[in-house]
Amino acid sequence: MGDRAEVRIDGPRHGNPFVDVDLSATFTRGATVIRAGGFYDGDGRYVVRFLPTEAGEWDIEISSTEGSLDGLRGRVSVARARDGRHGVVGVADRFHFAHADGTRFTPVGTTLYAWTHQPEALQQETLATLAAAPFTKVRMGIFPKSYLYNEEDPELYPFESADGGGWDVSRFSPGFFAVLERRIRDLDALGIQADLILFHPYDRWGFADLGPEADDRYLRYVVRRLAAFPNVWWSMANEFDLMLEKTEEDWERLAAIVVAEDPAGHLLSIHNCLRFYDYARDWITHVSLQRIDIYKTAENTDAWRDEWGKPVVVDEVAYEGDLDQGWGNISGQELTRRFWEGTVRGGYLTHGETYLSDDDVIFWSKGGTLRGSSPPRIAFLRSIIAASPTGAIDPLPGEWDAPWGGVAGEYAIVYYGFNRPSFRTLVLPEGEFEVDVIDTWNMTVTPVPGRHRGRVLLELPGREFMAARLRRAGT
Amino acid sequence: MGDRAEVRIDGPRHGNPFVDVDLSATFTRGATVIRAGGFYDGDGRYVVRFLPTEAGEWDIEISSTEGSLDGLRGRVSVARARDGRHGVVGVADRFHFAHADGTRFTPVGTTLYAWTHQPEALQQETLATLAAAPFTKVRMGIFPKSYLYNEEDPELYPFESADGGGWDVSRFSPGFFAVLERRIRDLDALGIQADLILFHPYDRWGFADLGPEADDRYLRYVVRRLAAFPNVWWSMANEFDLMLEKTEEDWERLAAIVVAEDPAGHLLSIHNCLRFYDYARDWITHVSLQRIDIYKTAENTDAWRDEWGKPVVVDEVAYEGDLDQGWGNISGQELTRRFWEGTVRGGYLTHGETYLSDDDVIFWSKGGTLRGSSPPRIAFLRSIIAASPTGAIDPLPGEWDAPWGGVAGEYAIVYYGFNRPSFRTLVLPEGEFEVDVIDTWNMTVTPVPGRHRGRVLLELPGREFMAARLRRAGT
Repeated sequence: MGDRAEVRIDGPRHGNPFVDVDLSATFTRGATVIRAGGFYDGDGRYVVRFLPTEAGEWDIEISSTEGSLDGLRGRVSVARARDGRHGVVGVADRFHFAHADGTRFTPVGTTLYAWTHQPEALQQETLATLAAAPFTKVRMGIFPKSYLYNEEDPELYPFESADGGGWDVSRFSPGFFAVLERRIRDLDALGIQADLILFHPYDRWGFADLGPEADDRYLRYVVRRLAAFPNVWWSMANEFDLMLEKTEEDWERLAAIVVAEDPAGHLLSIHNCLRFYDYARDWITHVSLQRIDIYKTAENTDAWRDEWGKPVVVDEVAYEGDLDQGWGNISGQELTRRFWEGTVRGGYLTHGETYLSDDDVIFWSKGGTLRGSSPPRIAFLRSIIAASPTGAIDPLPGEWDAPWGGVAGEYAIVYYGFNRPSFRTLVLPEGEFEVDVIDTWNMTVTPVPGRHRGRVLLELPGREFMAARLRRAGT
Repeated sequence: MGDRAEVRIDGPRHGNPFVDVDLSATFTRGATVIRAGGFYDGDGRYVVRFLPTEAGEWDIEISSTEGSLDGLRGRVSVARARDGRHGVVGVADRFHFAHADGTRFTPVGTTLYAWTHQPEALQQETLATLAAAPFTKVRMGIFPKSYLYNEEDPELYPFESADGGGWDVSRFSPGFFAVLERRIRDLDALGIQADLILFHPYDRWGFADLGPEADDRYLRYVVRRLAAFPNVWWSMANEFDLMLEKTEEDWERLAAIVVAEDPAGHLLSIHNCLRFYDYARDWITHVSLQRIDIYKTAENTDAWRDEWGKPVVVDEVAYEGDLDQGWGNISGQELTRRFWEGTVRGGYLTHGETYLSDDDVIFWSKGGTLRGSSPPRIAFLRSIIAASPTGAIDPLPGEWDAPWGGVAGEYAIVYYGFNRPSFRTLVLPEGEFEVDVIDTWNMTVTPVPGRHRGRVLLELPGREFMAARLRRAGT
């Protein structure tokens, strides 16, 4: 597996190269041919990027509408990826994820809608926070955000200013994208996937309603620039159904552009507010949803898996915080509970933090420093998932009042949630098992001494947020 | 309004008077005629009871299949009811309850399935507990209970023992009913309604499957004995759908017996486990349901009101406790939350307490002493309901993340539940209002100083379980 590679060519600067010139390249090594579209990066520089499937020499041939570029040939030498790089993440085992080399990937998301639109010092603070946090995926917008607690103008915009005010949406701002790309690489260095939100409704600049021609051009430009980054996921929208200007036909057309322009085949989904998109669509690799009931949330995860037959990532179950808004003021205990409820049902959850702050720097949008109580518990949960022999948790037949998940016959977790049993009798599968009592809030794993067969009487503290775990005993 | 009255007549003892003799009486005062069935009370004593609609002299005429009783006439003098007695509770204002004299009745239930089958000292302890508790309704079984934590045999049974073992289900035990009646009177003295469960599945004596003939006879006997008690409600069953021997036709036939034999027209419902009965049936005066989702519970209350157009009493939303069973181990906080969620949506909730105890005396079934944290909070909630100008709470148009209930334009409560806003902006109805911040857990009402019009910025502590209240300011 190779690192991202690119070819840069000098070419014409006159007119509007963003619109006037199209180019693409084929990258060939042995029988492998990768075709990728290119983009204009300003200053007469044309770039085609690709994500090589292996290291070594690749032959390049350029096609272009611009005669001076068309037919150019060259060769690029792709270095081996650094150790610990596993390639693009895709769907594995129907409901889960793995890197291209088969390494299990567990999405443990957080939300940083506008972190790349903040001052550089704050972006660096966010990266330092992420380095010490349990998160492996970040939901982040490409466009800046205009919303409650998001009133400031960013330093950079994706489009050039138009003469006379407004935007020239036919001219992209390479500086804007350079920052974004630096941040995507920074995330990659931390082992974090960038779940890039391509469109969203929280806008005061007109970016949410560019019209089909500009939308298509923007999308093609973005995908051509970013598809060679291994740690990219595409999210067509945050809360697509609040973007009233776009119809389902628009979304389908736009999704087709992403599919066509992304030779790496990154994960692709679309996120809702009040109603779900039809996640059965072929182009949707996984379900990325916001719960649509404010009371029963991640407890629906197994039903959603059954409904669409795809991995379920619950990319909003309300955020830990104390804002006035109901989407942003649940406790760390409640968010942690939702993580467990969804995890034992075979899904993945996304964190967000929304504590009111005098400076309006709220983690869910701008980043900064975390102060909630859920992140350490999410880290603890991640360790419980990682201890599964497959690295994944699937729903197992449950009890009426307690969901079970894990790997049948090998590794099983029961989660008691807000129930507070003083004891339970567990019926073990055939064979010998080690049994642990897990306090999901206090982050303790307490073995029940010995190895166990048949039935185990589990003594529990009569507190909320307890779980138990069975592990088949080694021979 | 009069007190319960009865006529007692000596008659034949030979054969089996429970089966051999039927009798009824008409009670006449002026134009008012009440017809009631009678019952055999053992020792040659025949009784007909009635609940007079007014005090004074009532003429009595007996009809009977037994010639020596048939045609007997007499007169009974009915005393005025004691002060503070308001008569039978019925449905009022479609979704609520009131006594016969129009006094608002607010069901604040608790659960004491088998308290009358316990030793007398424990029953007295239970009554002392109830005297200091906020509850106005008790769910209680007529038949004894056999279940987890309910292994003991009661002292008395509703039927006589048969020669050679088992029960003679054609002969009732007047001593058993005398205790039950004493307890119904004791509850009445405390202002508590006895929500009598006529059938239930938790049985090891055969009472859950007597067959139609014995069921009908039992039911007729019970209703004739108890319908003259003003504080009786009828519950056809606890968890009807777990009584697999009875079909819907059985329930409909049995309900028709209750309706026919109850001249006082007490409230009548039926309680479920896994699926709801068709609460639209004419004989069902109010919805008495157990939640069928273990996560989203009392939050459905307004939807249930809309579905059946009747008062909704959520007679099981899980109990405060620490049993192994999921129905019996939620926290006092969670039970209190469910009370508030259901109340602001215009329904009524029922408490139960299930803390593990070395002596297996668990309040939900056997009574005794309460030790949970929810009862004082339920008392506090009762005071908030009582402060409504109508004494009742109906759902009001809500915010997406916070339900409102009360009396439109006069008295409104918003409940934030597990959300933890640091502030909210309330938009008041036309006019001037007093505004309170309510901490439902710490049981405080903190006025926002002054009188308010238009918008109010509400400062909140960023804790769970807060509410706010608007009251139209007096002139």
